Amino acid sequence: MTASKTNTGNFFEDFAVGQVLQHATPRTITTGDVAVYNSLYGPRFAVQSSDAFAQAIGYPRTPVDDLIVFHTVFGKSVPDISLNAIANLGYAECRFLEAVYPGDTLSAASEVIGLRENSNRASGVVYVRTTGRNQRGQTVLEFVRWVMVRKRDSASPAPEAIVPKLAERVEPAMLGKAVPKLDRACYDDTLAGSSHRWADYVVGEKIDHADAMTLEEAEHQTATRLYQNTAKVHFNLHEQAQGQFKRRLVYGGVVISLARALSFNGLANAFHVAAINGGRHVAPCFAGDTVYAWSEVVETAEIPGRDDIGALRVRLTAVKNRTCADFPRQNDKGSYVDGVILDLDAWLVLPR
Amino acid sequence: MTASKTNTGNFFEDFAVGQVLQHATPRTITTGDVAVYNSLYGPRFAVQSSDAFAQAIGYPRTPVDDLIVFHTVFGKSVPDISLNAIANLGYAECRFLEAVYPGDTLSAASEVIGLRENSNRASGVVYVRTTGRNQRGQTVLEFVRWVMVRKRDSASPAPEAIVPKLAERVEPAMLGKAVPKLDRACYDDTLAGSSHRWADYVVGEKIDHADAMTLEEAEHQTATRLYQNTAKVHFNLHEQAQGQFKRRLVYGGVVISLARALSFNGLANAFHVAAINGGRHVAPCFAGDTVYAWSEVVETAEIPGRDDIGALRVRLTAVKNRTCADFPRQNDKGSYVDGVILDLDAWLVLPR
Amino acid sequence: MTASKTNTGNFFEDFAVGQVLQHATPRTITTGDVAVYNSLYGPRFAVQSSDAFAQAIGYPRTPVDDLIVFHTVFGKSVPDISLNAIANLGYAECRFLEAVYPGDTLSAASEVIGLRENSNRASGVVYVRTTGRNQRGQTVLEFVRWVMVRKRDSASPAPEAIVPKLAERVEPAMLGKAVPKLDRACYDDTLAGSSHRWADYVVGEKIDHADAMTLEEAEHQTATRLYQNTAKVHFNLHEQAQGQFKRRLVYGGVVISLARALSFNGLANAFHVAAINGGRHVAPCFAGDTVYAWSEVVETAEIPGRDDIGALRVRLTAVKNRTCADFPRQNDKGSYVDGVILDLDAWLVLPR
Repeated sequence: MTASKTNTGNFFEDFAVGQVLQHATPRTITTGDVAVYNSLYGPRFAVQSSDAFAQAIGYPRTPVDDLIVFHTVFGKSVPDISLNAIANLGYAECRFLEAVYPGDTLSAASEVIGLRENSNRASGVVYVRTTGRNQRGQTVLEFVRWVMVRKRDSASPAPEAIVPKLAERVEPAMLGKAVPKLDRACYDDTLAGSSHRWADYVVGEKIDHADAMTLEEAEHQTATRLYQNTAKVHFNLHEQAQGQFKRRLVYGGVVISLARALSFNGLANAFHVAAINGGRHVAPCFAGDTVYAWSEVVETAEIPGRDDIGALRVRLTAVKNRTCADFPRQNDKGSYVDGVILDLDAWLVLPR
Repeated sequence: MTASKTNTGNFFEDFAVGQVLQHATPRTITTGDVAVYNSLYGPRFAVQSSDAFAQAIGYPRTPVDDLIVFHTVFGKSVPDISLNAIANLGYAECRFLEAVYPGDTLSAASEVIGLRENSNRASGVVYVRTTGRNQRGQTVLEFVRWVMVRKRDSASPAPEAIVPKLAERVEPAMLGKAVPKLDRACYDDTLAGSSHRWADYVVGEKIDHADAMTLEEAEHQTATRLYQNTAKVHFNLHEQAQGQFKRRLVYGGVVISLARALSFNGLANAFHVAAINGGRHVAPCFAGDTVYAWSEVVETAEIPGRDDIGALRVRLTAVKNRTCADFPRQNDKGSYVDGVILDLDAWLVLPR
Repeated sequence: MTASKTNTGNFFEDFAVGQVLQHATPRTITTGDVAVYNSLYGPRFAVQSSDAFAQAIGYPRTPVDDLIVFHTVFGKSVPDISLNAIANLGYAECRFLEAVYPGDTLSAASEVIGLRENSNRASGVVYVRTTGRNQRGQTVLEFVRWVMVRKRDSASPAPEAIVPKLAERVEPAMLGKAVPKLDRACYDDTLAGSSHRWADYVVGEKIDHADAMTLEEAEHQTATRLYQNTAKVHFNLHEQAQGQFKRRLVYGGVVISLARALSFNGLANAFHVAAINGGRHVAPCFAGDTVYAWSEVVETAEIPGRDDIGALRVRLTAVKNRTCADFPRQNDKGSYVDGVILDLDAWLVLPR
């Protein structure tokens, strides 16, 4: 009987395609959460910083930073999906569908959409589509992620392999649902920090975000707890000291948020992350590392039905302990160069 | 004249049985304080996390975590009671009497209920009953604590020794005052994170909370300041470097909050700390230590007049730098085993 | 084209006397920001801590700590004024003109009021008057600061040297604009933490604030990001490791806030910083340093038209890694003694 109430998480055998897992601990997002988030990353996008700015262009008030929404929903899925994960392998088809405001309550559920046992029979890959909803039942966010999960028993039979077909990128027509119709004339470029609007960016353009941030243990732990993410590798030095890296791993979401905040310098008007097409945590990040970032514009798109906003598809690259003046990412053979820690493919929304 | 305005705190001679000390700096608790608290410990109890969840079962909104209330009231008493303390010796008869909501303002007062000089004549034990009130004058919390306090002058005469008789545990009939009548049918076990309700726990049951957290200096300092607790040992490395431990001590309340947050894994429906019967900080905790926790159910009780909730009396044990799979606490002779840092005896409330 | 959108900041040549720079990223201050601030410094002034206390004496609710307002407005000016600064040389004529409440949105602008090239031709001093406004356009704060800024090209011609004449101290008649008419009878000294009101302080009085705080990297970074201050020296260890100090520098505003919070012990009723007459960051502060503080009363003043409040002019001195029992500041020759890090000349307001 003892210990039976402790959640030990799901193993590969516990998942079945079509299964829906409602995750625990709905969470009301408050201006307090926003303040803690801001103090951890220092974002400066005016829409998320100023009620007055947001209201001037058509929001009822400042929306919550898109990545707070992402990390919160992601965090809820951890105890059910990835507590026994060996690795988070990727994301796709991530879309932000409704603005979230302080006072909204987020809950999360995941549907298993794919399973494939590894050839070593000790683990397998689980694909889930995770959905975040507000207190009115509206879907505010959805994304697919896939993780490598341990088997409880390597002798368990393998399920039929089902690998979902995922979009290479979210269609422009699907973007911008979380953005109200903007009054462009009231969008103040000076207050926003840049005169460069959507049409001023071109495909191939590379932007060095120049600024950098050195991460501390207390900072990444605080951030990860804010999202109620319980993955042990981020918090337990006693256990990690026995592991591969001998130390705590920084949650990949911390690197995403940090790179996003740094990207203000060069993308100040890209106030909304509309979609994440894919993302790869190329190498681990640890406390003491200094994170720099740069972006490449890989596509620009009009959004059907919207003459107020446009979309830029960027590859946001984060590196550690080196600058980005030479735009480091991959070498001629396609391998990531030393120092690259994140390669994120996202659609950003800017005013036209 | 110089320095006369500096508070040097009360010494043992300054206390008299029956004396009431109104403590300074009332504090309005906000959703910001809740967010900082959450980011420091990562609690996941649904009632305190989600307005929607709390409202569904009968709360007007999410109540503030019980331990925020405890630490805030405790913190206010420090400058008057324990600025010259050598040790915090214990607590008893701690009861949470009214729910506290963001926007409520807490103030604190303490009555001296016992005094006993130590045989070394250099210090004595002071017993106080501390009461926390909200802005409407309602008592939200009360507890007894006793501390060993330095004498200003060892030659001062000893007061008559008065040692209060304290209850071994709070009576079940006194529990649950801070919990509105719950609509059990609306309590969603899936969202709460566990199907185990009050009746599913039995006396003698031991629960390994499994998760763990490594503490950083910035984290415990931030937590302790949040409570406006000014005890020097937590903040002043320059002075502590000359002391017994050569470093800053983690405030015991940080360990309590951390153990409570970890206890979600196994006690997810124990959403309310109704009373603390006693508590002992068995050994000091320092930055760099990794804290684990486990609980033993030592009593279960119905609460008279309440068919919606029941109470579990648990011994919540926190240890450092070792796991809890073997439920470490005391050896055959009753001595605490190495690594144990907290032994807390509390009444928890769960839905029936 | 690449990198052209990155803000590299203004150089000395980019400034002209009379030029007005509207700074980016207006910011709504929330109770969340207040909570983060409190958790970083631990201030205990009752007016800023308790809605009930503030309302009892005449405020509509607790005002935001004056230094949150200062650091926020200062932080907005950094990307335009001091991104290429070699040193922040001083402040003057800083006045707090309107109370700021949670929910207010602050924006900032600076007018260049002086320029003087250095004899080395590689840099020059820029004087700006920075103004913070709320969402109603009211000026809540203004101050002058001067910084040494690099030239882009040392061969650029020098501008006409214009050095503004700055007041040695703000006139008492200009103080107290941010304080409503107080109901002194409702000001509760016990709750405020001291029975010493304005008339109880005399010129020449020295107060050892006794308490101290050891700073961590995570703490000063978190504070500085909260203010959206982007100065690289505080955040980038990778770059700083190559520099003069081999480590990150603590933002001077962190030391000011810390000294202010420590000053509660001895100045508990000095609930409002009405003006900063001048300030000097005498030596750098680093993570690991323990900060102590003391104050000297250098002037007391009635405020014309106000019989509810009075003003104390204090020199608030912060030191590191030594106590203040001997009131360290300058030696006989006027040089700052070892350990002094801040010498701040401010007007504080107390109830009469």
